[in-house]
Amino acid sequence: MADSLAILKKSGLAIAILAAGKGTRMRSKLPKVLHKLSGLTLVENVIASTKLVNPTRKLAIVGYEAQQVKTALAAMTDLEFVEQTEQLGTGHAVQQVIPALEGFEGNLLVLNGDVPLLRPETIENMLKTHRKNNNAATILTAQMDDPTGYGRVFCDENLTVQEIIEHRDCTPEQRENRRINAGIYCFNWSALMEILPHLKADNDQSEYYLTDVIKDLSPVMAMDAPPSEIAGINNRKQLSEAEDVMQARIKDELLLSGVTLINAASITIDSMVTVEPDVIIEPQTNLRGTSVIKAGCQIGPGSLVENSLIGENSKVVHSVVSDSEIEAGGRIGPFAHIRGKSEIGENCRIGNFVEVKKSKIGAGSNAAHLSYLGDAELGAQVNVGAGTVTANYDGHNKHKSVLGDRAKTGANTTLVAPITIGADVTIAAGSTLTRDVDPDCLAVTRVPQKTYPGWRPKYLRAENEEDKPKN
Amino acid sequence: MADSLAILKKSGLAIAILAAGKGTRMRSKLPKVLHKLSGLTLVENVIASTKLVNPTRKLAIVGYEAQQVKTALAAMTDLEFVEQTEQLGTGHAVQQVIPALEGFEGNLLVLNGDVPLLRPETIENMLKTHRKNNNAATILTAQMDDPTGYGRVFCDENLTVQEIIEHRDCTPEQRENRRINAGIYCFNWSALMEILPHLKADNDQSEYYLTDVIKDLSPVMAMDAPPSEIAGINNRKQLSEAEDVMQARIKDELLLSGVTLINAASITIDSMVTVEPDVIIEPQTNLRGTSVIKAGCQIGPGSLVENSLIGENSKVVHSVVSDSEIEAGGRIGPFAHIRGKSEIGENCRIGNFVEVKKSKIGAGSNAAHLSYLGDAELGAQVNVGAGTVTANYDGHNKHKSVLGDRAKTGANTTLVAPITIGADVTIAAGSTLTRDVDPDCLAVTRVPQKTYPGWRPKYLRAENEEDKPKN
Amino acid sequence: MADSLAILKKSGLAIAILAAGKGTRMRSKLPKVLHKLSGLTLVENVIASTKLVNPTRKLAIVGYEAQQVKTALAAMTDLEFVEQTEQLGTGHAVQQVIPALEGFEGNLLVLNGDVPLLRPETIENMLKTHRKNNNAATILTAQMDDPTGYGRVFCDENLTVQEIIEHRDCTPEQRENRRINAGIYCFNWSALMEILPHLKADNDQSEYYLTDVIKDLSPVMAMDAPPSEIAGINNRKQLSEAEDVMQARIKDELLLSGVTLINAASITIDSMVTVEPDVIIEPQTNLRGTSVIKAGCQIGPGSLVENSLIGENSKVVHSVVSDSEIEAGGRIGPFAHIRGKSEIGENCRIGNFVEVKKSKIGAGSNAAHLSYLGDAELGAQVNVGAGTVTANYDGHNKHKSVLGDRAKTGANTTLVAPITIGADVTIAAGSTLTRDVDPDCLAVTRVPQKTYPGWRPKYLRAENEEDKPKN
Repeated sequence: MADSLAILKKSGLAIAILAAGKGTRMRSKLPKVLHKLSGLTLVENVIASTKLVNPTRKLAIVGYEAQQVKTALAAMTDLEFVEQTEQLGTGHAVQQVIPALEGFEGNLLVLNGDVPLLRPETIENMLKTHRKNNNAATILTAQMDDPTGYGRVFCDENLTVQEIIEHRDCTPEQRENRRINAGIYCFNWSALMEILPHLKADNDQSEYYLTDVIKDLSPVMAMDAPPSEIAGINNRKQLSEAEDVMQARIKDELLLSGVTLINAASITIDSMVTVEPDVIIEPQTNLRGTSVIKAGCQIGPGSLVENSLIGENSKVVHSVVSDSEIEAGGRIGPFAHIRGKSEIGENCRIGNFVEVKKSKIGAGSNAAHLSYLGDAELGAQVNVGAGTVTANYDGHNKHKSVLGDRAKTGANTTLVAPITIGADVTIAAGSTLTRDVDPDCLAVTRVPQKTYPGWRPKYLRAENEEDKPKN
Repeated sequence: MADSLAILKKSGLAIAILAAGKGTRMRSKLPKVLHKLSGLTLVENVIASTKLVNPTRKLAIVGYEAQQVKTALAAMTDLEFVEQTEQLGTGHAVQQVIPALEGFEGNLLVLNGDVPLLRPETIENMLKTHRKNNNAATILTAQMDDPTGYGRVFCDENLTVQEIIEHRDCTPEQRENRRINAGIYCFNWSALMEILPHLKADNDQSEYYLTDVIKDLSPVMAMDAPPSEIAGINNRKQLSEAEDVMQARIKDELLLSGVTLINAASITIDSMVTVEPDVIIEPQTNLRGTSVIKAGCQIGPGSLVENSLIGENSKVVHSVVSDSEIEAGGRIGPFAHIRGKSEIGENCRIGNFVEVKKSKIGAGSNAAHLSYLGDAELGAQVNVGAGTVTANYDGHNKHKSVLGDRAKTGANTTLVAPITIGADVTIAAGSTLTRDVDPDCLAVTRVPQKTYPGWRPKYLRAENEEDKPKN
Repeated sequence: MADSLAILKKSGLAIAILAAGKGTRMRSKLPKVLHKLSGLTLVENVIASTKLVNPTRKLAIVGYEAQQVKTALAAMTDLEFVEQTEQLGTGHAVQQVIPALEGFEGNLLVLNGDVPLLRPETIENMLKTHRKNNNAATILTAQMDDPTGYGRVFCDENLTVQEIIEHRDCTPEQRENRRINAGIYCFNWSALMEILPHLKADNDQSEYYLTDVIKDLSPVMAMDAPPSEIAGINNRKQLSEAEDVMQARIKDELLLSGVTLINAASITIDSMVTVEPDVIIEPQTNLRGTSVIKAGCQIGPGSLVENSLIGENSKVVHSVVSDSEIEAGGRIGPFAHIRGKSEIGENCRIGNFVEVKKSKIGAGSNAAHLSYLGDAELGAQVNVGAGTVTANYDGHNKHKSVLGDRAKTGANTTLVAPITIGADVTIAAGSTLTRDVDPDCLAVTRVPQKTYPGWRPKYLRAENEEDKPKN
C-alpha cells in the first residue's frame, strides 16, 4: 500500500492553473477566468482539457477576487486553491504551489486559466512526449503565421529547446522564427524544485518569469500544438472568437456521430451536453448545462434546454425546458415552459402557452393550451383543459394540486390548492374548485346563463338609458 | 399517334437515380437519401435538379430499406422504383433499370441520390452538350483544388474523354490532373445497351463499375461543373455544409429578386418556398415547405411558417403558423400559433398567446390575448376578449363554436361547444356559456360580488381564527 | 457677432447627399435611400457618418419619390431638402444646391445616399486633409483588389490628383491602377462655384458629371479609405453584405467595451442602441432603435427589445419589450410581451405568457403567469395570479384598472375596468369583479361547488340517459 502510493507519487501528475489575473481588458466585475465559454468558465474549460491525463493533484493559483473564484469553483471538490497575493510574474505564481506540493513526486503541468482551447489530446501528447524523453521540461509551442509579440522558441532538429527569446529581444533574423512559446509547460517537479525557489526578478519589470527556469533545465523539448488551441483570452472579442472555435468542435463531433444540425451556425451547444444519434437540432436552439437529448428527438426551432433530460423521440418546439425530465415521446410546445425539477411522463403533450413548475405529470397526459401547473401531481392520461390554472400560492406558501388518473379539467378551470381531484373526475368548464373531489364524479361551479335581448354597451346607450342586467 | 410516340421515345430522356445505399457514415436509422436538405430529401433534391430537362421517365434504384424509401417518395407518382437487392457496384445498379426501360429510346441520365447540389442549369447544359455532339456518353466532371481520392478524367483539347483512371491507379504525374469524375453520366441508351449487359466484375472488389463501359463507347465527352455542385453527402457534416451552399443559393436569389433578409445567416428558407418582392424576413425565421409569402409582409423575428400562405402586408412576429392561410393585412403575434388548416380573414389580429386551430376567422376580427380558438367559426369584426377559450373537446369528440359578425366575448369567457353565438352578441366578462345565444343579446353568467372587510389570509390568521367567507 | 458669423461661414461645412435615385435593382416600391441598414435608413446612415465633423448645413438632394423621402426623414429638422426633378447626372444634382447655399462660405462635402458604410473617422480625416492643404477639392479614393468598372484616380507621390479616367477610357496599363474614385468629394465651395454653374453635358449620356469639375480645380488631393467603407448599395444582396459589415463593427465595439455576446452571429444590434459593460447578450436576440441596456443585464436568448430601457441586472428571456421601461432587477419572461410605454418598477417579475400594455407596475410586483394587464396601474408588491385579465376594452373605449399596494388577485381573476382595487385586497380565485373594492378586503364572486357522483360524459352515456346536472 505504502509502496503503491510511492509509485503513484513518482508517476503523479499535478496541474497548476494560473488564475490570479484580473483581466482588465475584459472590462468586467467578474475575474477573467470566471467568464464562460460554451457553458463552462474559462478555468473549468482548462481543467476539462486535462481529462485524458488524470491529474492526481489540481491546483488553481488565485489572486484577483480570489474568494469569488473559489466560490464559483467550489463544486470541484478536488481542486485546491493557492493564493498569490501579489502579482509578481508567472515564476512567482508557480512558486506559490511549492508548499502545497511538499513531498510531491512526478510532473507538474502548468496551464493558463485564460487559454481554454487546448484539446485533451494535445495535452495527452505533450505528457507522452515529456515522459518518453524523460524531459526536465516540455514546452508547448505553436507555429504562428504572425508570431509578432510572442517569445520565440529555438530548437534543434529533435525539438530540443536551445533558447527562448522574447520578441523585443530578437534580432530581425530571429524574428523570422515562427515557433512561439504558448506558455504551457510540463516540468519534472524535482528538477524544477532545484531552480524555481532561486528564481530572480532581475529585469525591467522586476517580475519573476517562469521562462527563466528553462535555461537551467535539461533536457527541455518543444511540442507544437495547432495555433488555434493556444489562443489566450484577453478581451471579449477574443472570447467570442474562442466560442466560435469551441462551438465548431462540439458541432463537428455531433454531426459526425449522427446528429443533424439545421442551420448549425444559429445553434449553441454547451460542452457538457450529450446528444444521441438521429436527433435533429433545429435552428435557433440552445442546449445547455448537463442536458441529455435521447435518440430520435427533434429539438427546436427556437428552443432552450437547460440541465434537462429529453427522452427518446420527443419534440421540443419554440419552448424552454430547464432542470426537468421529459420521458419518451413528449410533444412540447410551441411556447411551453417546463421548469423546477418537473417530471413529464411518457407520451405527454405540453402545449401552447403552458407552464409547468415543480410538477409530476403521468404518462399520456395532456396540457395542451394556456395552463399553469405549479406544484401539481397528475396521474396518467389526465386531460388539462385550456385555461386551467392551479392556484398554488396563497401569498405566502405553495400548495399542492393532485389529479388522479384520467381526470379531466374543463376549460378555464381554477384549482385552489391544496386540493385533490380523484381519478376519473370531470370538472365542468369555468369551475373554480376549492374542495377535494372524490373519484368518478363530475364537479362543477356554475351559474345559470342569462340572456338580455337588445342590450347595448354603454357607449351606444343614450345618456339616461340604464344598463339592463343589474347584478 | 404511334409515330409521335416513337419520336418521343427517340428524343426521350430517362433519369436513373442511384438510391440504394445505406450511408453508414450518416449513423442513422434513416436511409441516406431520405435525409433532408432545405426541406426536401436528398433524392427529391436530385430530382428537382432535373426540372429544366423534363425527363419522360424517372427511375429510382432502391435497395437499403427500399420500402421506407418508396413510402417516403410515394407522393411522386411519376417516379418508378427499381430494386437492387444486392449492392454489386454502380454498373450493377444501372443494370437493374434494363427491364424497366425495355424498348426505351433516347438518353439515360444517371444521377446520384446523394449528390444534391447540381443546379438545373448544369444538367441542362450537360444534356445540350450531349445532344449537340451526338455523344454516346457525356461525363460530368469538375476541376478540384484537391482531387485526391477521385478518379481522374483525361481529355483532349475538345473535352473528348480519353481515359478514366482511378486515383489509386494513377502515376504521380497523372495525379496532377485536377479534372475528376463526378459520377454523373448521360448515356445514349441504345449505345449503352450494347455494353452494359456484358459488364464484368473482374476487379479486387468483384463489383460492376459503371466507368468500365466508358472505354467501349464513342464519342465520350466531359463537361466541367463547378466543384461545389458535385459534392456528395456521406456524413452529416457534409450534409450541414451542403445546406449552407443551398441556403446561400436560395437567399441570393431572393435578395436579388427584391426580398430583404435581416441577418440572413440566422434565417432558413426551404427550396419550395415562394417569397414575393418587398417582403422583409426578420432574423431567426424559418420558412418551410410550400409556404407562400405575399408582397409587403414582415415575417419574424423568431417565426416559423410551414406550408402556409401569408397574405399581402401581413406581419408574423415571434409566432408559428402551419398548414394555414392568413389573408392580407394580418397582424400575427408576438407569440401566436395558428395551425390545422385555419383560415384567417383580411386584417385580422391574432395576438399574444393565442392559439387558433382548425378555425375560420372572418375579416377584421381580433383575438389579441391569451385565447384558444379550436374548431371555431368566427364572423367578421368579432372581438375575442383576453382569456377566451373554446371548450371544443368533451374528452372524446371535438365540437364547433360559431360566433356571428361583430360578436364580442368578454375577458375569461368560456364557450362550451357545440355552441352558436349570434351576431352582435356581447358576452359579459367571466361568463361560461353552454347554450346558444340569439343575435343582438347580452349573455352573462355572473355571481354577485361580495366583500369581506378585514379578511386576512390563513397564514396571517391566529390558529383558531376562522376564515370569514364560508362558501 | 456679425464677425463671428462671418468666421463660422468661412469655416462652415455643408453636406450634400445624393438621394434622388430610384434604385431599380432594389426591386422595391421604397426609394433606395429609405431601405434600412442596422435600424437606420441608408441616408440616415450617411448622415450619421458625418457626426464628427459637425456640418452646419445638411442638404439632401431628392428626386424619385421625393415626398416619401421627405416624410421619412421629417424628424431630422436640420435636414434641408433640395429637389432634382430630372436625373441629369451627379454634376446636375450638386448644381441643385446652389440656390440653397447662396452666400455660403466654407466647404461642401458631397456624399452618396447609397454609400452607408463610411466611418465618421474617415470623413473626419478627409476634412482634415482638405483643410490642412487648403485643397480646392479632396476626393475619397480606395485601393481595390479588383478595380474593374471604377473610374481610376491618378496621383503623384503627394496624392495630388493628376487625372481621373473612367474605366472604359483607360488604356490596359492605366487599368492596372487600383486607386479608384469613391464618388465622395470635399470642395471649397467658392472654388467650386466658379466651375460648377458652367458644367457641360458634352458626353455620350448627355449627363453632367461632377468629376468634370476636378480638372479645373487646384489643388486637388486624393485620400484613400478602406475599400469596405466605400461599398455602394445597388441591390438587396449588397444591402445584406453591408449589414454584415455594419453589424461586425457594432459588435466588435461592444465586445471590446465589455459586453459579452453569445453566438454573436445570431444577434442583431441597431446602431443607435446603447449597451453598458457586463451585459450578456444571449443568442438570437435583436436590440433595436434607441434601446438602452444597463449594466449587469442578461438579454435573451430569443428576445426582441425595441426602443426600451432595461434597468441594471435585469433578465429578459424569450420575450418582446417595446417602447417601455423596465427598472433595475426585472425578471422578464420567458414568453412575456411588454409594450405601449409600460413602466415596470424595480425588481418586478413579468413572467410566462404575460402581456403588459400601457401599464405602470410598482416595485416588487409579480405577474408571473398567463395574464393580460392593459391600461393598468399596479402599486408596489402586488401579486397578479395566473390567468388574471384586465377587461380594459368595452368594444369602444379603453378603461383603467388600478390595484393598490400589496393587492393579490387570485387565479383566473377578471377585472372589468374601470375598476379600483384597494391596497392589501385579496381577490379570491376565479372571481370576476365589476365594482371597486376598498382596501384591506377580501373580494369574491363564487358559486358553491357541487359534485355529481357517477356522472359520465355524453359520449359514454346510453342514448336515453340524461345528463345529471341540470343547470
